[in-house]
Amino acid sequence: MNVATHHLRCTECAAVITKDDVSSNFRCPQCKGLYEVVYAWSDVKHPPNAPADPASRLPNPSALRWLWQERRSSSLAIDQSGVWRFRDLLPIVEDPEKVVTLREGNTPLYDLPRCAKGAGIDWLLAKHQGMNPTGSFKDTGMTAALSVAAQRGFEWVACASTGNTSAAMAAYAARAGLRSIVFIPEGKIAWGKLSQAMDYGALTIQLKTDFDGCVKILGELVQKFPIYLLNSVNPYRLEGQKTPAFEMVEQMDWQVPEHIVVPGGNLANSAALGKGFVEMHQLGLIPRTPKISVIQAEGANPLYRWFIDSNRVMKPVTADTRATAIRIGNPASWRKAAAVIDELGGWCEQVSEQEIALAKAEIGAEGVGCEPASAVTLAGLKKLVALSKITREERVVLILTGHTLKDSQYTIDYHRNELFTAAETAQLTPAQLVQHAALRKPPIVLEADSALVIRTLESHMNQPQPA
Amino acid sequence: MNVATHHLRCTECAAVITKDDVSSNFRCPQCKGLYEVVYAWSDVKHPPNAPADPASRLPNPSALRWLWQERRSSSLAIDQSGVWRFRDLLPIVEDPEKVVTLREGNTPLYDLPRCAKGAGIDWLLAKHQGMNPTGSFKDTGMTAALSVAAQRGFEWVACASTGNTSAAMAAYAARAGLRSIVFIPEGKIAWGKLSQAMDYGALTIQLKTDFDGCVKILGELVQKFPIYLLNSVNPYRLEGQKTPAFEMVEQMDWQVPEHIVVPGGNLANSAALGKGFVEMHQLGLIPRTPKISVIQAEGANPLYRWFIDSNRVMKPVTADTRATAIRIGNPASWRKAAAVIDELGGWCEQVSEQEIALAKAEIGAEGVGCEPASAVTLAGLKKLVALSKITREERVVLILTGHTLKDSQYTIDYHRNELFTAAETAQLTPAQLVQHAALRKPPIVLEADSALVIRTLESHMNQPQPA
Repeated sequence: MNVATHHLRCTECAAVITKDDVSSNFRCPQCKGLYEVVYAWSDVKHPPNAPADPASRLPNPSALRWLWQERRSSSLAIDQSGVWRFRDLLPIVEDPEKVVTLREGNTPLYDLPRCAKGAGIDWLLAKHQGMNPTGSFKDTGMTAALSVAAQRGFEWVACASTGNTSAAMAAYAARAGLRSIVFIPEGKIAWGKLSQAMDYGALTIQLKTDFDGCVKILGELVQKFPIYLLNSVNPYRLEGQKTPAFEMVEQMDWQVPEHIVVPGGNLANSAALGKGFVEMHQLGLIPRTPKISVIQAEGANPLYRWFIDSNRVMKPVTADTRATAIRIGNPASWRKAAAVIDELGGWCEQVSEQEIALAKAEIGAEGVGCEPASAVTLAGLKKLVALSKITREERVVLILTGHTLKDSQYTIDYHRNELFTAAETAQLTPAQLVQHAALRKPPIVLEADSALVIRTLESHMNQPQPA
Repeated sequence: MNVATHHLRCTECAAVITKDDVSSNFRCPQCKGLYEVVYAWSDVKHPPNAPADPASRLPNPSALRWLWQERRSSSLAIDQSGVWRFRDLLPIVEDPEKVVTLREGNTPLYDLPRCAKGAGIDWLLAKHQGMNPTGSFKDTGMTAALSVAAQRGFEWVACASTGNTSAAMAAYAARAGLRSIVFIPEGKIAWGKLSQAMDYGALTIQLKTDFDGCVKILGELVQKFPIYLLNSVNPYRLEGQKTPAFEMVEQMDWQVPEHIVVPGGNLANSAALGKGFVEMHQLGLIPRTPKISVIQAEGANPLYRWFIDSNRVMKPVTADTRATAIRIGNPASWRKAAAVIDELGGWCEQVSEQEIALAKAEIGAEGVGCEPASAVTLAGLKKLVALSKITREERVVLILTGHTLKDSQYTIDYHRNELFTAAETAQLTPAQLVQHAALRKPPIVLEADSALVIRTLESHMNQPQPA
């Protein structure tokens, strides 16, 4: 593994720089574009199943598959991590033995037979990234970027975020013995999610401005202080976030699903997964790539608007959705995600608040559970099937990005019928109303009287279970 | 694997029955004692490192170690589960291929160097059972007992609980396509934890009585309806909960730690871990057993009172602690836990609310995080070291039972200084006050003014990091 082979390349003007020349805000000095990490083997087209070429610098696909499987039974921390087990395809740190890890990755791939039936397809899987140590997919990116920060000698790291990013950054910084700063807009605090940043010892600064204002001030700070920026403009985060693509096909015994469905917020995640699949294809690890579709909430849908705009102009929106993890109106990585949809195929869809809530309850009823932003994937899948963009036989994998415990209040509000406004309830279709009634499980209050409890149970036990 | 070899034995009168004769409330008909699962090889004393005896029905230790390691690189669900990977030592289901699993277990073993230093020992590990799918150690037990329920043809399962047990039961029942009922005392609802039971589709019934009243009515129901009881009196839960003992020594390359420290609530967990270590020792997998110490909150300390009582009389208490997962005054499994302490050695300690809060913040500051009940382990460790019950050189493993997201409000209250009453704050020692000030990370509110933010950061960056 030779780290000297990695460079950064601007995704807009294609200028290439070495890691030592990167600016503190990870923007191309020429065009302000975002960087991606490129390797000696990036962009090479290796024919599928071609014999290994010892003269080339390409990793050998069979050897990689064998190596990655062997590492699963190793006791080393670096092998137990579902990110660093694939370190051959993310050679971004000088000393792989010293990575900052919480044993992230190795997340389950669940089958969802009842959701599949509800969506009208034969087979549906969910890759649950909410089963990572801090409860969201952000951990896979943070182990990568924090390891880079630690090995370059930074003592401070920072991000602007009110949610999952700050939790992941604070945990990995604490693990590495680094100090972390979270900038949040004052008065827009999701205390539940911020509890993790506090628990892991981050310094939290509430600024009397909006999210963009926080980003702006953070941009000034990283130029003045030796603080390593960990917002999703940091390209190393995407190197970690591409690894669930590797895990997924390994879990499917190197079969490639036809379609991946990803929630769309800041859009770095769909970009990262796309990069993972493209690299596997280039290296001959998989014979083809899947389509990747991105689903947004109607109230935070800038990529969807871009996608249906014949002029393809990106216009930021004022975001409003209860799926807080994707409440982003001006996504930093939209160009990268758009390129993935263009290259791999796939669509962008939007879903309503009601569709999100029902989809979340359906996933929960399979015993899996997720935060609301994750549930846009199932809601979007239903739309794509209805539009014949996805056919019954296709193998679809939903990316669930956060654990249900990330937003308990949403779950409580849904089941107590306090989530929807009267206007929102009025918009439910008759079929949705039936489903809503079957999925909702509000607590029943009873006197502690055996006979009464028995009568109540009898009536419930005679009700058929929702399909 | 021969399931016919498993029986149930009363832990009090030692009466043995087959699985078909078990009563619906899992109590011995003779003496009302609790059962434990026994196998053909239970109670056999196999000398450590003795050669395999093909004539005996004992599993071969070397073969088991090899098999368990090999399964880690398998793609089968039953092998990916950290419980069923060890199925040779829990042959409780007819068809192991049909177990109900959410890929539980395989939890990380973290080193906690700063906590070790703070406690005055050289090396400290934490086995984080909060990294299970529903966020608590209960999953390992539920996969076992739910698999038994499903294979015996039950359609309904039930428990009395307001917390982690109901979340785990609801998830595994949903996974199996069974229906679940949670009984909770009305007015004592921890909505955050109950959100999971609702999310996973459980029927929640609030009874106008206390926890004991719920247990009583549930006991009547299981005799009238074909409902499978999943409270911790169900001995199959303990079979799943013993597997973290196997995982832990495997993660330590078959070294045995000197001391395991476990939170003490209903006390089934310490009993289960003890059973796991004893069985490994009997089978020659490990040359000796560790000590197991149980830590309780001062406000819910019946085992501690029993432990220091020269007459050894168990007296239930009225439980009161903010560590809700161990707020139990009349623990069902106290005899089993007491037997483990007696057999393996170890102690029972109690810790104050303040000690719990500080210990939780210390664990969080390592980037790990846990719910308050888990933090009693670190608080108790400090006391045991101070009392010379644990020496500096001993390798100690803390069992962290729940994820920090299980109780976000506690974390928020601590860091905003709203957790302790004035009386509680007054009880902090000078050293605790210093530690409290260093660990607390309340958010700072600032105008969005670069110069002001820079000045504030400069003052923070010049402060030394707490050790």
